Amino acid sequence: MRRIACSLVAIVALCSVIYIPHASGHADDEAAPIFGIKIPPGYRDWKLISVAHEEGNLNDLRALLGNDLAIKAYREGKLPFPDGTIIARLAWSYVPSEENNKAFGRTQSFVAGAVTNVQFMVKDSKKYAATGGWGFAQFKDGKPDLTAALKTCFPCHEPAKAGDFVFTHYAP
Amino acid sequence: MRRIACSLVAIVALCSVIYIPHASGHADDEAAPIFGIKIPPGYRDWKLISVAHEEGNLNDLRALLGNDLAIKAYREGKLPFPDGTIIARLAWSYVPSEENNKAFGRTQSFVAGAVTNVQFMVKDSKKYAATGGWGFAQFKDGKPDLTAALKTCFPCHEPAKAGDFVFTHYAP
Repeated sequence: MRRIACSLVAIVALCSVIYIPHASGHADDEAAPIFGIKIPPGYRDWKLISVAHEEGNLNDLRALLGNDLAIKAYREGKLPFPDGTIIARLAWSYVPSEENNKAFGRTQSFVAGAVTNVQFMVKDSKKYAATGGWGFAQFKDGKPDLTAALKTCFPCHEPAKAGDFVFTHYAP
Repeated sequence: MRRIACSLVAIVALCSVIYIPHASGHADDEAAPIFGIKIPPGYRDWKLISVAHEEGNLNDLRALLGNDLAIKAYREGKLPFPDGTIIARLAWSYVPSEENNKAFGRTQSFVAGAVTNVQFMVKDSKKYAATGGWGFAQFKDGKPDLTAALKTCFPCHEPAKAGDFVFTHYAP
């Protein structure tokens, strides 16, 4: 019975985080559930960490951008990342470019199509102590993406513990 | 005979551009042949335009970065790009990530490996009037890449005339 009660408390707490609308009404001000992360202003202007291509269900091209703390830590090779570090993962659908292929004379070029979603990892060693010091968030069309199952983020990132739970390496 | 003489003059002229060493001796100060372009300081800090994957012989992941003039023009959708625009194309070998694949539980992740080379397009409508207002350069390990056959850059970019000879579109 105690177990059920705890679960209910957890569900109510979770739902309250998810469903209470933000006063401002602006999509960009909405915080992602669980970790309470909002879209960091100006993140699209951040410096590039690296790029990647995910096949499979994701089938995207992605860029990792970092705020100044992230870039400094990457370039100095210092781990763990300091509190305040934010890493943004932008992703776009992986689409062939007819225009490029014509220029190359063969099918070989794949470019960024429509935005799929954007994710953030925010370092706060106290606030997010239970998840390696990182908070996780995903936004789609400027709104927190509730299907992201944010609880699965940290377990998936745990194998990267040696790199402070971050998979992406800096591309020089 | 006149034809041969002209070719020799062209070859000598080209060689003199290529082989006269730069006084400073610093690799980053060396200008690429033909267009005389040097590596723009701080280009690795520029904002992201987009990303791409080229298969075929190139087999790379690439990121396009732009200086402030480039980013402003892209975001405002204004063509042609103003003089002073510089677009940097960074590229890395396309390599599978074992670490990422383990986390995903399947082979699907490709990341940036070693740097292949870096290219620049520099807009100067007067200086480079004969090539659509753009100068082209490629560097490998900080040195002008003489194998780049820079004379082929513009003919290849000509089909993108509607986009001011730039293939890459801005990824939001």
